[in-house]
Amino acid sequence: MKKDRFKKWLPIALSTAVGLGAVSMSMHGDAKNLTKKEPKIKNVIFMIGDGMGPSATTALRYWKDDPDTMEMEKTAFDRYFVGKQMTYADDPDENITDSASAATAMSTGEKTYNAAIAVDKNQKELKTVLEAAKARGKSTGLVATSELAHATPASFGAHDPNRKNMNEIANDYFDEKISHKHKVDVLLGGGSSNFIRNDRNLVNEFKNAGYSYVTTKDQLLRNKNEQVLGLFAKGGMPKMIDRNHDLPSLKNMTTSAIKQLDKDKDGFFLMVEGSQIDWGEHDNDIVSTMSEMQDFEKAFQAAVQFAKKDKHTLVVATADHATGGISVGANGKYNWFTEPIKAFKRTPDFLSETIASGADVEATLGKYVDLSLTPEEINSVKEAAKSKDVTKIDATIEKIADLRSNTGWTTTGHTGEDVNVYAYGPGKEKFAGLINNTDQAKKVFKIVHTGK
Amino acid sequence: MKKDRFKKWLPIALSTAVGLGAVSMSMHGDAKNLTKKEPKIKNVIFMIGDGMGPSATTALRYWKDDPDTMEMEKTAFDRYFVGKQMTYADDPDENITDSASAATAMSTGEKTYNAAIAVDKNQKELKTVLEAAKARGKSTGLVATSELAHATPASFGAHDPNRKNMNEIANDYFDEKISHKHKVDVLLGGGSSNFIRNDRNLVNEFKNAGYSYVTTKDQLLRNKNEQVLGLFAKGGMPKMIDRNHDLPSLKNMTTSAIKQLDKDKDGFFLMVEGSQIDWGEHDNDIVSTMSEMQDFEKAFQAAVQFAKKDKHTLVVATADHATGGISVGANGKYNWFTEPIKAFKRTPDFLSETIASGADVEATLGKYVDLSLTPEEINSVKEAAKSKDVTKIDATIEKIADLRSNTGWTTTGHTGEDVNVYAYGPGKEKFAGLINNTDQAKKVFKIVHTGK
Repeated sequence: MKKDRFKKWLPIALSTAVGLGAVSMSMHGDAKNLTKKEPKIKNVIFMIGDGMGPSATTALRYWKDDPDTMEMEKTAFDRYFVGKQMTYADDPDENITDSASAATAMSTGEKTYNAAIAVDKNQKELKTVLEAAKARGKSTGLVATSELAHATPASFGAHDPNRKNMNEIANDYFDEKISHKHKVDVLLGGGSSNFIRNDRNLVNEFKNAGYSYVTTKDQLLRNKNEQVLGLFAKGGMPKMIDRNHDLPSLKNMTTSAIKQLDKDKDGFFLMVEGSQIDWGEHDNDIVSTMSEMQDFEKAFQAAVQFAKKDKHTLVVATADHATGGISVGANGKYNWFTEPIKAFKRTPDFLSETIASGADVEATLGKYVDLSLTPEEINSVKEAAKSKDVTKIDATIEKIADLRSNTGWTTTGHTGEDVNVYAYGPGKEKFAGLINNTDQAKKVFKIVHTGK
Repeated sequence: MKKDRFKKWLPIALSTAVGLGAVSMSMHGDAKNLTKKEPKIKNVIFMIGDGMGPSATTALRYWKDDPDTMEMEKTAFDRYFVGKQMTYADDPDENITDSASAATAMSTGEKTYNAAIAVDKNQKELKTVLEAAKARGKSTGLVATSELAHATPASFGAHDPNRKNMNEIANDYFDEKISHKHKVDVLLGGGSSNFIRNDRNLVNEFKNAGYSYVTTKDQLLRNKNEQVLGLFAKGGMPKMIDRNHDLPSLKNMTTSAIKQLDKDKDGFFLMVEGSQIDWGEHDNDIVSTMSEMQDFEKAFQAAVQFAKKDKHTLVVATADHATGGISVGANGKYNWFTEPIKAFKRTPDFLSETIASGADVEATLGKYVDLSLTPEEINSVKEAAKSKDVTKIDATIEKIADLRSNTGWTTTGHTGEDVNVYAYGPGKEKFAGLINNTDQAKKVFKIVHTGK
């Protein structure tokens, strides 16, 4: 978007004409598509940006803006926007959803109580779309940057009355079988501590059952086994901008998963979660939030790229709920600035841990934050550092990013706003308009059973 | 939405089946519509919920929820949801829009600087869709609950380098003519002080030119003149829940406007603004915000009802931007409660003015707020009342509503989030997907010129 108000009138006129042309072409194209036969849907890639509410998706567009052009550049999601999804909880005690009940709604088609992992309000197990896909002979995968046993992937591949039972959820991934086969073929993410435990070593059990086991990006990219367990951190994976090069990006994991799953002639179902957008927002940390939005966007691009070549793959991307009450603009200011956020080369979490473990405040800020910080800003961090309290230092650094960018927050929890739905590939129109989160599962069940 | 987790499983199964049936029917219907000839679009009703961002529209759905049913009830807007609109400003100093530049984008198709009323970045006048409609021989109307010379209606019917020049804007409504005719036939809203002034009495000028002049609901409903000026307050009109019965609702004004405008065989263009959703949010006042959301929703319902009978009317409803950084849920709580908001029979503005002018705090709260307020809550208002400062008393009362409902705010200004677009009638599909605010004008210009 161009800031200069007196230049480039010709390009506006041109882009308007081109824009109108594109719109009328695309509408014409849609009309034609409805009359010709849609290709059968063989594969479904269902992507969830945890906490990717309406402010986060708009924020990503502000992030993409090139100041040398008139228009604001669109995100990879934007051109595939088809509608919105209602996320409200039907929990007797809470009307705003958590990630477990939201994922259960999207994986099973039923609203349940918060914390439920693919079980109904009576704690009865519900069939998930991943299980339906496996029962139809498809290969299946779960990819996340959180622990693999975290609420969202768990609600597709496990069953538990409580999301907190992460070891039991990891057990389910191995123990619960469909037609005597392990139900998840590709498992990539964090959370090795739920798999390698004193009471049980699920990694060895998976290896004995024929799965490859990988823990680095190189191993993942070299893997040729259609069944693979990849665990890249004890807990959640480091955020994108904190990640070392030996760890895969969400895009690497998504691409690797697709490569293996696509070997199945019956097709596949893959769930990919950008897990930590939500974590950044829970922490009211705009730097982490934008780091994870980018990681998720690149994974989405890779999925769409595959679908474009394959022509029988439907990609759906959405969120489970909004988080943090984040706003694009705050404190009465009519600007949301991305430069102060882009200036952070590491997350405030990383910086605060570095400082709390004894590193010099000014040197650490100087090394990782590409901003001319004011003496007041530096002193605020020095003051917090005296406490050696990571949380306090973290909050102080986050405040600098908030005030400079004009980012607002109202909660460290979730909020109830409708979230966006993006779709590409055959069947995408099924997800258009305003839908309920339970509709996602209903539509995917039908696709898995009928190919349309 | 039902809170009881153990009942009514049969209705779920039934509603699921019915839901799927409805979806497939509606898709079938849409496909058929593309092949049959669309009726010509004679009339356009363009409705703007000022500040009606994504949180406000979700909040209205929570508001509609009937606790005795399983599903959350939908709003009048929901079934007509077609997509979203980007609102970013292309102002050299601000990337979040104000109402003037947003309305100019929607009325002229050009992004301009904040505060601009239908003029470009060089302050050159831009043609508006209302003017184009009048030039095509259609009748035209502007309806708002703010002053009629306020930014949004002004950007459709006037031209000024600065929104603050409200008297000059009111002059434009009379002085600027299209083919020697006054360009706005129906003008209904607040702001008589911009029309009746020491230097000029525009009311008399309009009357001399053949317009009826009305100032009460009764007069408005009895009016039979196709050209009418209705001014129902000196400034903005009272908010819906503060309004006396002698004042029209936004629905009354919309219906009356349609009745007169529809007499023109060439059709009409009408802009209707729910102006004060934004004002409620600027004030971080959830009671006023929900009051104005309801007023706007009822006006939208009335417009759609007319369009359903008429069959040649396109209704589009959207917002100019989000305001307040409002969130559905706050402070770590996973509930957004509407009961504490519904308990207010008058706005905090009304209550604080009553208290500041000497009324007893406890009696006033008891009369107008249907809640068992705690001694702490009552004392907080008593404490504020000692200052006789309306703003302070107002903020204290608002805080009670915020804390009890879990409403969050991040700013007293605007925010950048995409806003929803709703459409009904022939041509509605043109507004689907993700569009820019400038696209609204481009599409309406084409409709006005070609009827499709």
